[in-house]
Amino acid sequence: MNFRPKVAIIGAGFAGMAVVRALRDTDAEITLVDRNNHHLFQPFLFQVATSILEPAEIATPIRSLVHDMANVRVEMREAKRIDAARRVVIMTEGDDLAYDILVVATGARTSYFGHESEWAQHAQGLKTLPDALAARNRLLTAFERAELETDPAKQARNMTVVVVGGGPAGVAITGTISEFVQRTLPSDFRKIDLRRARVVLVEAGPRLLSAFSEAHSTYAMQALRGAGVEVRLGVPVSNVDAEGVMIGGERIEAATVLWCAGVQGVPLARTLGAPLAPNGTVKVDKDFSIPGHQDCFVIGDAAHLIGPDGRPVPGLASIAQQQGRFVGELIAARLAGSVPPTAPEPFLPNKLATITRHEGIAEFAGRSITGFVAWLMWGLLHLRTLSDGYSKIAILGNWLRLLITYRRSARLIVEAPSETNAGESPAMKAA
Amino acid sequence: MNFRPKVAIIGAGFAGMAVVRALRDTDAEITLVDRNNHHLFQPFLFQVATSILEPAEIATPIRSLVHDMANVRVEMREAKRIDAARRVVIMTEGDDLAYDILVVATGARTSYFGHESEWAQHAQGLKTLPDALAARNRLLTAFERAELETDPAKQARNMTVVVVGGGPAGVAITGTISEFVQRTLPSDFRKIDLRRARVVLVEAGPRLLSAFSEAHSTYAMQALRGAGVEVRLGVPVSNVDAEGVMIGGERIEAATVLWCAGVQGVPLARTLGAPLAPNGTVKVDKDFSIPGHQDCFVIGDAAHLIGPDGRPVPGLASIAQQQGRFVGELIAARLAGSVPPTAPEPFLPNKLATITRHEGIAEFAGRSITGFVAWLMWGLLHLRTLSDGYSKIAILGNWLRLLITYRRSARLIVEAPSETNAGESPAMKAA
Repeated sequence: MNFRPKVAIIGAGFAGMAVVRALRDTDAEITLVDRNNHHLFQPFLFQVATSILEPAEIATPIRSLVHDMANVRVEMREAKRIDAARRVVIMTEGDDLAYDILVVATGARTSYFGHESEWAQHAQGLKTLPDALAARNRLLTAFERAELETDPAKQARNMTVVVVGGGPAGVAITGTISEFVQRTLPSDFRKIDLRRARVVLVEAGPRLLSAFSEAHSTYAMQALRGAGVEVRLGVPVSNVDAEGVMIGGERIEAATVLWCAGVQGVPLARTLGAPLAPNGTVKVDKDFSIPGHQDCFVIGDAAHLIGPDGRPVPGLASIAQQQGRFVGELIAARLAGSVPPTAPEPFLPNKLATITRHEGIAEFAGRSITGFVAWLMWGLLHLRTLSDGYSKIAILGNWLRLLITYRRSARLIVEAPSETNAGESPAMKAA
Repeated sequence: MNFRPKVAIIGAGFAGMAVVRALRDTDAEITLVDRNNHHLFQPFLFQVATSILEPAEIATPIRSLVHDMANVRVEMREAKRIDAARRVVIMTEGDDLAYDILVVATGARTSYFGHESEWAQHAQGLKTLPDALAARNRLLTAFERAELETDPAKQARNMTVVVVGGGPAGVAITGTISEFVQRTLPSDFRKIDLRRARVVLVEAGPRLLSAFSEAHSTYAMQALRGAGVEVRLGVPVSNVDAEGVMIGGERIEAATVLWCAGVQGVPLARTLGAPLAPNGTVKVDKDFSIPGHQDCFVIGDAAHLIGPDGRPVPGLASIAQQQGRFVGELIAARLAGSVPPTAPEPFLPNKLATITRHEGIAEFAGRSITGFVAWLMWGLLHLRTLSDGYSKIAILGNWLRLLITYRRSARLIVEAPSETNAGESPAMKAA
C-alpha cells in the first residue's frame, strides 16, 4: 500500500473549499473540519438579516459539495487547539486529528476592539447565519414594539437603527434597512409614522468605503442620504448598551444596533504559536506557511497579508479562493514531487459595493461604474460564484420580487429553537 | 360619530384569518393579536423539519395579509388572561385590550399526556417554526455525531429516529425522514452505513391513520415498511429520556425523538371560565360562543366539537376556515342588524395524507385514491390554499427538485440566534 498523506483543512469557507477542489484528484487523504454543516456565501448574509433571503439560499451542506470526492472526509466539529510540533489538532469533542499537512482556513470573527464582553451582547455582529437571523429578529421586533408603545421616547428608540462601520458590509446593510423601513413597512403599520424612523450609519474614519476612490465614497454617502440614512463620519463609538450608543459626545437611543466595524483572528489561530498581527490574524510567509512549519498553512481571512497598495488585503471571497487554490496546488505539487507553483502576487481585486437596490459601485481594471448597472454587476458577479444552481434561481426570484414590489418574503421573527426545552417555544412558555 | 364595535381576535391562524376576511368590509374596529409576526401554513411544517422547505416558504407576515384592510390593527404580543365579565384581554406586556366581541383562535399545543415536564425536553413537538427548526437541527446533528462516533452503541443511537404518533402528521414526517436517511444521506457519509439507520414509528392505538378506512391504514403501514420504517402498533410510550424511549417493555435507544402524538388546549383557554374537554379545549355552543357569553367565540383547534361520526372534529385547516368564516359572518350580521347565518353542520372533511414522496391517500366524496395521484392531490390541494403566490412557486420548485434528485436544499444546522450574547454564536464561544 502506498503512503497516503493526511491533509487536514480547518474551515469550509471560500479558502478551505478551494484547497479541497485543488486536491480532489490527488492521493491525499483529506479531512475537512467545520463547526457548521454548511458552506456559507457570506457576501449575501446581509440580505438574510434584512428579510430578503432565507438561510438555505446562501448556505450549502458541505457534504453535498464534496459528495463526489472519494478522498474527502467531512467532520462537523470544532478545532480547539493546534499542536504544530506533534502535528495534531485537538478537538472540543472526539479524538485528536493527526495530519501531515494542515491548512487553517477558519475565517475571522467580529471584533469589538477590546469591548467584546460589554458590547457584543448589545451590538449584533454579522458573520454567521445565527448572527443574521438574530439581527433580523431584533430589527423586526423593534418595529413591532414601536407599534405597541405608548411612551413617545421608547417608541422613538424602537424606531431607530444604528449600524456601526462604513465599509462595504455596513454600507450594504444600512441602505437595504433604510429601504425596508421607508418602502416596505409603511403600508403595514397603522399607528407609527415610519417617516419618523431613523437609520444611522456611524463610521470612525473620515469617509465611507475607504478602500474605494474618494469620489465613490462621496457617491455612497449621497446615495445613502438620498435613501434617508443619517451618515456620521469621523465619530468613533465610545459606548454601547441595551438602549443605544454613544458616538463622540452624542447619545443615540436605538433598539437595534448592528456591528460591521471590524474583524479579528479566531482563538484557534493563537494556538499555532506563529506571529500575529495586532488584530489576531496570522502573519504568513509568501507561500502562506507559518515560520518554522512548512507543513502548516494559514489562508483566507485568518491570514494577515499586505497588498500591493500597502494595506492589508481585504477579506474578499475572490482573494480567499485565490489563496486556497495556490496552497492546494502547492500541496499537490509536493505530493507529486513536481515543481511547486509560484506564490501569487497579492492582487488588487475588483471592487464592488452595493448601496440600495438600484445603486452600486464597481471599480475594476482602471474603470469605474456607479448606479444600477454597478448594482447589477455586484449581484450577478457574486451570483455566478454561488455553487448551488438551485439557489441562484431562488435568489434571482427574490431579487426580482424586491425590485418590482419592495416585498420581502422572509419577514419572519422566529424565536430560537431551544435545545433544553424542546416542547415549547419561548413564547409558549409565557402563554 | 358612529359607534364602531371593537372586535378582538386572538390568533392569526386559519380560523382567525377567516374571521378577519369575513369582517373586512364592516364597521368593526378589528384588533388581531398574535404572539408571532407570521401566519403559519402548518400542513407543510414537517417539510421544514425534514430540510425540504425553508420557514419563509410556509409563513407569511400577518401585516402583509391585512395591509389593505384599513379596519384591522395587528398587535404582536401575547394574551395572558381573558376577563370575560369585564370584556378585556390582559396581555403579558402593554395595556389591556378591551373588546365588544372576542374571538379566541389560538390553536392548540403539543400534549405529552401529563408528562410535559419530563418528556417535552427530549421529545420534540412539531407545532411551530422553532419546533420544526429544532427537529431539523436534532436530526442532522445526530447523523453528524454518528459519523464521528467510535463507540458502536452510541453510533447506533445517533442513527435511530423515533416518531411517536401514527396520525397524518406522524406518518408524513416518518415517511419523509426515512427517504431522507435511505436516499439523500448515503452518498454524503463516508464512514457510517446508512442501511443500519433505524426509523421507528410508534402508535399506541391498533392502527395508523385511525380517521381513515382500515384498508388505508394497512396501505400506509405497508408503504412505510416499504420505505424502511419499523412500524410499532398498540404500544404506548411509557418513558422518554435524553437517550431514547420505552415502548411497552422495550427500550429503543434514539438520539432523535419526535412527538406527534397529541394536542391540548392552550392555557389562555382555561381563563375563559368555560367548560373544557379533558384535553383542555373549550366546549362551545352550536354557534361557537361559550355558555353565558354570546360575545365570546372559540374556534379552530382551540374549540371542542363533535363531528357527524361521533368523534371530535380533527384539527384541519379546512375546518378551522369554515368555522372562522361562519363566526365572521355571524358577527357581521349582528353588527348590521341582519339575519344571522345558520351554524354550519360539522362536516366530514376530505381526508388527505402523505406518506412518502410518491405515496399518498385521499378519501373524498365516497371515493378513495392511493399512490402518486393521491400524493399529488395532497400537495396541490394544500398548495392552492397557501396565500402567498411567490411561496407557491418556491415550494413547487423544491418539490420538483426533491422528486427528481432526492436533494434537499434546506439541510442546514443553524444554531439558535442568541439574544444575550449576540456577537458570538454558541459554537464560536467554544472555539
